[in-house]
Amino acid sequence: MTGPTLEDVIGRITRPDDDPVFAAAAAEARQRWDGRAKPHGALGQLEALGVRVAGVTGTCPPHAPRRPSVVVFAADHGVVEDGPSAWPSDVTGWMVRTMATGGAAVNALARTVGAEVTLVDVGVASDLSDVDGIVHARVREGTSSLARGPAMTRDDALAALAVGIDLATERIAGGADLLVGGDMGIGNTTASSALIAHHTGRRGSDAAAVVGSGAGSTGDRLARKRAIVVAAVDRAVHLSDPVAVLAEIGGLEIAALAGFHLAAAAARLPVVVDGVIGCAALCVAEALAPGTAARTIAGHRSSEPAASAALAHLGLRPLLELDLRLGEGTGACLAVPLVQAACRALHDMAELPS
Amino acid sequence: MTGPTLEDVIGRITRPDDDPVFAAAAAEARQRWDGRAKPHGALGQLEALGVRVAGVTGTCPPHAPRRPSVVVFAADHGVVEDGPSAWPSDVTGWMVRTMATGGAAVNALARTVGAEVTLVDVGVASDLSDVDGIVHARVREGTSSLARGPAMTRDDALAALAVGIDLATERIAGGADLLVGGDMGIGNTTASSALIAHHTGRRGSDAAAVVGSGAGSTGDRLARKRAIVVAAVDRAVHLSDPVAVLAEIGGLEIAALAGFHLAAAAARLPVVVDGVIGCAALCVAEALAPGTAARTIAGHRSSEPAASAALAHLGLRPLLELDLRLGEGTGACLAVPLVQAACRALHDMAELPS
Repeated sequence: MTGPTLEDVIGRITRPDDDPVFAAAAAEARQRWDGRAKPHGALGQLEALGVRVAGVTGTCPPHAPRRPSVVVFAADHGVVEDGPSAWPSDVTGWMVRTMATGGAAVNALARTVGAEVTLVDVGVASDLSDVDGIVHARVREGTSSLARGPAMTRDDALAALAVGIDLATERIAGGADLLVGGDMGIGNTTASSALIAHHTGRRGSDAAAVVGSGAGSTGDRLARKRAIVVAAVDRAVHLSDPVAVLAEIGGLEIAALAGFHLAAAAARLPVVVDGVIGCAALCVAEALAPGTAARTIAGHRSSEPAASAALAHLGLRPLLELDLRLGEGTGACLAVPLVQAACRALHDMAELPS
Repeated sequence: MTGPTLEDVIGRITRPDDDPVFAAAAAEARQRWDGRAKPHGALGQLEALGVRVAGVTGTCPPHAPRRPSVVVFAADHGVVEDGPSAWPSDVTGWMVRTMATGGAAVNALARTVGAEVTLVDVGVASDLSDVDGIVHARVREGTSSLARGPAMTRDDALAALAVGIDLATERIAGGADLLVGGDMGIGNTTASSALIAHHTGRRGSDAAAVVGSGAGSTGDRLARKRAIVVAAVDRAVHLSDPVAVLAEIGGLEIAALAGFHLAAAAARLPVVVDGVIGCAALCVAEALAPGTAARTIAGHRSSEPAASAALAHLGLRPLLELDLRLGEGTGACLAVPLVQAACRALHDMAELPS
């Protein structure tokens, strides 16, 4: 199934304040909460969450999602050859195989919350042609090293964005009523940190400060990672087009996740963003279509510093803060029952007698 | 069904360090996490949670709870007549009726996480004899005002503790594999704040500082609440027996929750503590049987300041911080999927190749 074009989805996204459907449903949800059998505001962030889902879907009370769908986009990063990561690129392919047999963390968490998992090879470097049950949508075999030049061409970035749009469109057509984005890609915290530093206007030591240890970079390796990010951000600073920035210093799974978020927002479907990779993708999506972030639910605050920088930039407060730093969509998966709970409470609770 | 005696359950609870079964299972869980397909420690607090459930149950990997059971204890507080609360005592009975018909927040959240809800009248002041489907275990019709003298007799406190033990025992015998404690009682943040101030060694302005607005006390009402708590704590300061303190400045549902937590710990069953009322009960339980708190999972950080004081005292970090201040077991309910996720990941995840 082929989804709408990037231009189509961007054209359908507005800021909530400019969207009477969003505003009306959100206002109705606020009023409905105030009339439920509880003190004013006593459900805290759950109330804000219910208001957001009402706004996104344009429905009050919103129905509680029953078919959550996790889509994990996997790709490799040429920058790994320049040493920012504690793990070799081969691990990406190995982890996709582990996910395909249900043995990764995201599989266990998705089973817990009743979500199905779709795996997408959008650019893994190692051979996965024998792996059944995954979506083979490889744009290229990993990016080039963003430490030495552009990570990919503009056409590659657009192709990966389209993969994300297609997957969201396909899951929605299949009945998914809540989307969760996940990622797998050794080296992807390097690209994500660079994108987040760029989109939050950080350079030099400020850019270095958002770089964390990812899957275990410390000491010299972490210093190398920081230097790579600072240089990449410097190189991208003159680029104003978000797709050009994505091609220069991004990654294929990040591009796909950006498309995924854009398509969900355009379709008025609630979508949960995961950790630092998802946040980088959402920065790209928000730059392309302002209002995308306000139509997104932040699942979990990754312990990567870039994640907090992005969340502040995007105006999002995550539902969970459990110090996860794994990606795969794990943190977002854990937030699914909270979304269901907010909708269910807003729908089911009795009225306060007046 | 009658459960074990208070002495029985206290006698079966030890600190984890003094319990070889707890220590062995927890150590095995730590080692198991380190061998799973993820970077070291990448599941953050979920790993700590899995270790705790392994220790509590003495099993590694622990099975993921499939039959969570919420028990809501309801009672009234004579202190309401002295004006600390924004709501009249009648609301307690009205909310129990709302819960009995499934219309309260806890019902909606329990449905979301697949938990059953048991309602227990352990001391509501208004007539509930016509309400079907609740456990009628009323010790007395609400407490006396703790602003004017002892809230109840020692025998009342012991009877309410026994109700909590009985209910936990009954739910476990019925197949529950994860317990969640909840409360309903207008005025109960006053009693809970007093108990927490006492058990954390606060007096005077330090005691006043842990008193929050509860279900909506502000201005003069909040000042009155603070003065009542400070005076109550002063009165209890010479009492060293936790049951005597509970009788002097506590509440019937708080006593029942203390018994509930003790019985769960004694039975090696994981139990989730909810907000400020549950934290007060857990302070009582920990004073009676050190080690109870270390066998408990903190579900949510209530926005009441006394809750944070108690959690720090008990050495607990809550899984959720969503600004809820409703009680009923709502915050703890929302943590149930996290407990299931931690167990499931520890059980299901593939090994990291060596």
